[in-house]
Amino acid sequence: MKLFFTAFLCLLAYVGLAQSHSHALGRAIRFPDIAGYKTLKCDLHQHTVFSDGSVWPDIRVMEALMDSLDVISLTEHLEYQPHKDDIPHPDRNRSFELAKKEAKDHQLLIVHGSEITRRMPPGHCNAIFIKDANLLLVKDSLEVFQKANEQGAFVFWNHPHWISQRRDGVATLTDFHKILITQKLLHGIEIVNEHTYSDEALQIALDHNLTLMGTSDIHGLIDWEFGIPKGGHRPITLVLAKERSEEAIRQALFDRKTVVYFKDMLIGRPAELMPIIETSIQIKQVSYIGKSDVLRIQIENRSSMPFMLQNKSSYRLHTSGDLITLQPGSQNFIEVKTLKRLNQLELSWEVLNAVTAPQTHPRHSMRISVPDTATQ
Amino acid sequence: MKLFFTAFLCLLAYVGLAQSHSHALGRAIRFPDIAGYKTLKCDLHQHTVFSDGSVWPDIRVMEALMDSLDVISLTEHLEYQPHKDDIPHPDRNRSFELAKKEAKDHQLLIVHGSEITRRMPPGHCNAIFIKDANLLLVKDSLEVFQKANEQGAFVFWNHPHWISQRRDGVATLTDFHKILITQKLLHGIEIVNEHTYSDEALQIALDHNLTLMGTSDIHGLIDWEFGIPKGGHRPITLVLAKERSEEAIRQALFDRKTVVYFKDMLIGRPAELMPIIETSIQIKQVSYIGKSDVLRIQIENRSSMPFMLQNKSSYRLHTSGDLITLQPGSQNFIEVKTLKRLNQLELSWEVLNAVTAPQTHPRHSMRISVPDTATQ
Amino acid sequence: MKLFFTAFLCLLAYVGLAQSHSHALGRAIRFPDIAGYKTLKCDLHQHTVFSDGSVWPDIRVMEALMDSLDVISLTEHLEYQPHKDDIPHPDRNRSFELAKKEAKDHQLLIVHGSEITRRMPPGHCNAIFIKDANLLLVKDSLEVFQKANEQGAFVFWNHPHWISQRRDGVATLTDFHKILITQKLLHGIEIVNEHTYSDEALQIALDHNLTLMGTSDIHGLIDWEFGIPKGGHRPITLVLAKERSEEAIRQALFDRKTVVYFKDMLIGRPAELMPIIETSIQIKQVSYIGKSDVLRIQIENRSSMPFMLQNKSSYRLHTSGDLITLQPGSQNFIEVKTLKRLNQLELSWEVLNAVTAPQTHPRHSMRISVPDTATQ
Amino acid sequence: MKLFFTAFLCLLAYVGLAQSHSHALGRAIRFPDIAGYKTLKCDLHQHTVFSDGSVWPDIRVMEALMDSLDVISLTEHLEYQPHKDDIPHPDRNRSFELAKKEAKDHQLLIVHGSEITRRMPPGHCNAIFIKDANLLLVKDSLEVFQKANEQGAFVFWNHPHWISQRRDGVATLTDFHKILITQKLLHGIEIVNEHTYSDEALQIALDHNLTLMGTSDIHGLIDWEFGIPKGGHRPITLVLAKERSEEAIRQALFDRKTVVYFKDMLIGRPAELMPIIETSIQIKQVSYIGKSDVLRIQIENRSSMPFMLQNKSSYRLHTSGDLITLQPGSQNFIEVKTLKRLNQLELSWEVLNAVTAPQTHPRHSMRISVPDTATQ
Repeated sequence: MKLFFTAFLCLLAYVGLAQSHSHALGRAIRFPDIAGYKTLKCDLHQHTVFSDGSVWPDIRVMEALMDSLDVISLTEHLEYQPHKDDIPHPDRNRSFELAKKEAKDHQLLIVHGSEITRRMPPGHCNAIFIKDANLLLVKDSLEVFQKANEQGAFVFWNHPHWISQRRDGVATLTDFHKILITQKLLHGIEIVNEHTYSDEALQIALDHNLTLMGTSDIHGLIDWEFGIPKGGHRPITLVLAKERSEEAIRQALFDRKTVVYFKDMLIGRPAELMPIIETSIQIKQVSYIGKSDVLRIQIENRSSMPFMLQNKSSYRLHTSGDLITLQPGSQNFIEVKTLKRLNQLELSWEVLNAVTAPQTHPRHSMRISVPDTATQ
Repeated sequence: MKLFFTAFLCLLAYVGLAQSHSHALGRAIRFPDIAGYKTLKCDLHQHTVFSDGSVWPDIRVMEALMDSLDVISLTEHLEYQPHKDDIPHPDRNRSFELAKKEAKDHQLLIVHGSEITRRMPPGHCNAIFIKDANLLLVKDSLEVFQKANEQGAFVFWNHPHWISQRRDGVATLTDFHKILITQKLLHGIEIVNEHTYSDEALQIALDHNLTLMGTSDIHGLIDWEFGIPKGGHRPITLVLAKERSEEAIRQALFDRKTVVYFKDMLIGRPAELMPIIETSIQIKQVSYIGKSDVLRIQIENRSSMPFMLQNKSSYRLHTSGDLITLQPGSQNFIEVKTLKRLNQLELSWEVLNAVTAPQTHPRHSMRISVPDTATQ
Repeated sequence: MKLFFTAFLCLLAYVGLAQSHSHALGRAIRFPDIAGYKTLKCDLHQHTVFSDGSVWPDIRVMEALMDSLDVISLTEHLEYQPHKDDIPHPDRNRSFELAKKEAKDHQLLIVHGSEITRRMPPGHCNAIFIKDANLLLVKDSLEVFQKANEQGAFVFWNHPHWISQRRDGVATLTDFHKILITQKLLHGIEIVNEHTYSDEALQIALDHNLTLMGTSDIHGLIDWEFGIPKGGHRPITLVLAKERSEEAIRQALFDRKTVVYFKDMLIGRPAELMPIIETSIQIKQVSYIGKSDVLRIQIENRSSMPFMLQNKSSYRLHTSGDLITLQPGSQNFIEVKTLKRLNQLELSWEVLNAVTAPQTHPRHSMRISVPDTATQ
Repeated sequence: MKLFFTAFLCLLAYVGLAQSHSHALGRAIRFPDIAGYKTLKCDLHQHTVFSDGSVWPDIRVMEALMDSLDVISLTEHLEYQPHKDDIPHPDRNRSFELAKKEAKDHQLLIVHGSEITRRMPPGHCNAIFIKDANLLLVKDSLEVFQKANEQGAFVFWNHPHWISQRRDGVATLTDFHKILITQKLLHGIEIVNEHTYSDEALQIALDHNLTLMGTSDIHGLIDWEFGIPKGGHRPITLVLAKERSEEAIRQALFDRKTVVYFKDMLIGRPAELMPIIETSIQIKQVSYIGKSDVLRIQIENRSSMPFMLQNKSSYRLHTSGDLITLQPGSQNFIEVKTLKRLNQLELSWEVLNAVTAPQTHPRHSMRISVPDTATQ
């Protein structure tokens, strides 16, 4: 019955649904901006029927709107076209163009990208911020990276830990990858792809100064693949950009200003990760309880992810063990035994679901000032 | 990352998800079989990227498996091909073939169909159980129905109440439709399409002996369009077939053995509708309460839809007014004031969310036998 | 550990819990005020350990605050004291006094009441707005009513359909009740008590000009008895009072200005019932869809109960059968086939879950004005 | 309306509610039995109207049945009787007797107890498994412990960290407590009371060989205080007893065979804690994925608490970081990169929400055998 309704009307209806849904079930992914930067939610590796995905580009736009994303890229395989019997399309920019049109009345940015799809090495890589995907249809595995870079592309290595290309699932640099990195043809690496995470890929990124990337690599439906109705979320890359513009995002990627959000976990270098944690977790009210020396602290979690904190200060908590969880978007209360009345104190937490290096969780320090009148 | 995984593995994962989902949230649509017939759940009007839909056929198969459907048909528009720049496909059977392949390891039946897409008259019609859709690409509006019928097709009129073709939304037979009916070229009519229902279409069906049809006419995603996570369901046609086979289903459609399930409402002729209600609603336990003359009756609703019943017997209910709702898949208790102790009695209910004719709701009669020992 | 904390602090904590709960799960019962009157939510029949209930009066106050009630009465049995071995209390005002103290910092009004507890006739009756319950400890069944009335009490007959006193559950006036009514000693009658409803009691009220009452008659916990976490609610009496004061409420009761709210059903005389329905259901936006003659109407339900409406106008609905449900606190959209473009129209609905007399549901009339520019 | 219904019938109704509730929302607390011992769920510190609580004993029995507890004790304050104006009861055994009667048709055991309620030292202590509470009404603070012990009581120190008796909330042994311990008059200590936990109390228990206790100390309603509808649970003591009998439970308490369950955390000595973790977490299926060296392991959590595990083995996980949560009663899947195909391996986890000493979490070791055919 859709025939003469415009796609735009349908889209609005979907987004309306998404919005009411978001409020009720918290589908929208939320992270606060940090000082000087926008915290942009990006999923820069996705597929549609224009390579081996199962949906038209319009669905990808609607999914992104429902998830409150800021940026997406549809990165069709250049070399792998299982639908080519049905979609022989000569123009590899088509998926991008359709998404762009679909998103034109929304804030969502569509970044032009393609997946360079090779055997190992180099395996699969995404080139985004490209100008013409057709020009990347070249045979030579090195030349395609040069062509992408000539277009100003930001290029990252996809799922280096993929068990179809590495049976042990251990991300490992080959000589070819080292050349790409040395020649500045490869700039980032997926440490998170779809349902997987790689400590080894994280270590490679740290060792070789690559941008940390996390993507859904969605082929089917976001809602099914990531269990959205049950509270799941797709993996994304938080890009800390000076402004909401394509150029600022591209620059931020080259500057490695990213944090990966995966299964309620944040992975990033301290310079980007810590400001996100610090702006997400806000101290609201502080007061001593009655005549006691137990300090009650109200902590707001302004993000849509839970934070799991382990107490590393010498103060003990009155109403829990050493582990607390700050639920998404909620007010939380902790009670700290300060032993005597203090004007200020410092609490220190290991953020168990944040990662700065393999097996390494950052410390989050809370400086607390107690107002003079703060006796409840 | 999907590249070398087979679609089959992915499908299993999706269905696994669907099954756990079904148990938790009740997504699976359930109606009991009736005496002598299977109650088959069919959605016989759907679209994919092969006409103006937004998904590949595999998604339609997975949605159907999640909803516990028995039969689907992908009825691409023959004459409306907005994706033709990308999918110039000469073979109009392609969508059917891809779905068939996708469903090969499941019980789900895929019926071959196409949507004949014309201005009014005759508007849009679906021909299902066809053999070759390509042969239906004929210009003449009458000839296409003849060609479809030559293939043994069951043909039904889609959304006769569509406001893009009737600005008042009132289904009305044209002379052309009358000819189609008289010549036995048109056999059914949608009284339900997507989010809409038409009393007038129901009246036409009753007046002209047409099969009652209800379909999702899905173009986007079932989950979004019908609010599945919030407990919604797609419209379907329940087909009462002698067995689970294509031929039996086709025969049942020609025999008008259908009931439409739409927004928790059942619409059908009494001969088909009443047995579904009667097998869905089962009396379990019957006993008088203590020393009183109030009879407690346990009623099971074996279907996945709620039944809204209005008391039309002379007996009054003790724990409610005249309106009760039997929740999906639940045990319900009612208490009836029988005035004195009876061995048997008959209760009569108007089923408010069942419809047998415009503005007409059927009566459901419950014959209750009270066991001698039935005093709790 | 409660020892030195004041009950007041605990109460606040409970109410805080209740408030967050209310927003999330809709526990608070809400009905809008009507023109000239406050719509006060009253539960005027409850028990505590001071007769045969299982909780101290403070729990009753907290339950009422959680449910957003305006008025409660703790109506201990005068003559039935199963806890008397433990609570020999000579002062029958004690329960009232404790509740009053507990509620002192809240808006909740505590009305002084007692349950006169006799065999049939007259069975059980509540006297509320009394001054001293001890003075009602008189043997003679008529005299106790006179004593209550001397104190200015409003007196109502409890559960006239109780199967422990009428094995058939059929409320029936005895000669004794007729005398009480004639002498203006009995003013109201419960048509709803706990989980039960009586059409016969409603008829008695209408025939003899008695005030309609509905109460929880709670002995255990409101949360358990009425399935609060699953969305249930306790039965209450909506009292339409000139202001939120004891005297105004007492006057409204004598004036029969009540509506009973029971299992998502409203029961009342039209003069009181219809204004509540009319202020609960508000037309928000009205516009024709596209170029069609189908009118889209946004309807807000401002109450916390669902309204089940059956279409009784000659216009057909485009997106449903004749039955619609306006969910609590929600925006609802209906589409009406007006056949041609109208500037105004009237819709008529039978409110299936409202009752004005046995087996009788009122009509709710919606007058709709269509703005000139109302084409979407 | 309760008057002539027996409390027993009401109880059944409540429990029926609880059971359906349990299945849907998981209210029932579940831990598997361990080898040689029953894992009994006990809440041995509770109040009713017979001291400063707000409910009659029957509510405490019903709450316990709903929570699937095995044992409760109603430990009324001996010396603190704020309801004494209303309940002057001379017999301090009354609360126990009423609960016993209420529970007579259920498996629930009622243990006779009382709270010895003094200023510090010794503060409050519970004596359970007593014979006659009246005999404990003695003035001398040492003598009351001797009297309790003469009755065979198990005695534990309540909330040693209570800020009303220790403004810093730090549990500290006084000389008086040391005497009680030395003379074997005090056997246990609450490390958990209501909403609070004390590392210092845990250290005292470990240093002085005291039994670890955790209790709700409930005064109001379990459902409200511990947020049951939102998935909360009351604190309890898991007692590992040779059988389900009062004597076996008493013996287990004296033998310090307890683990405390508090806010989804388990606290205990390794000898008792580890078997509970080991029987709760079960390896189900193990197989390598496809042709890869990634091992897929299905892990069942048979308890009603989530387990939060941090990977401490050298193997990395493929589908998560180092932190996993095994949800209550669920099947969980982890994927381990074993680098090459192994026949067996050992995984090691820090159980973050289990505690064996202040700030100390136990290691849980999983020995995994891989079947030869285990390739999926």
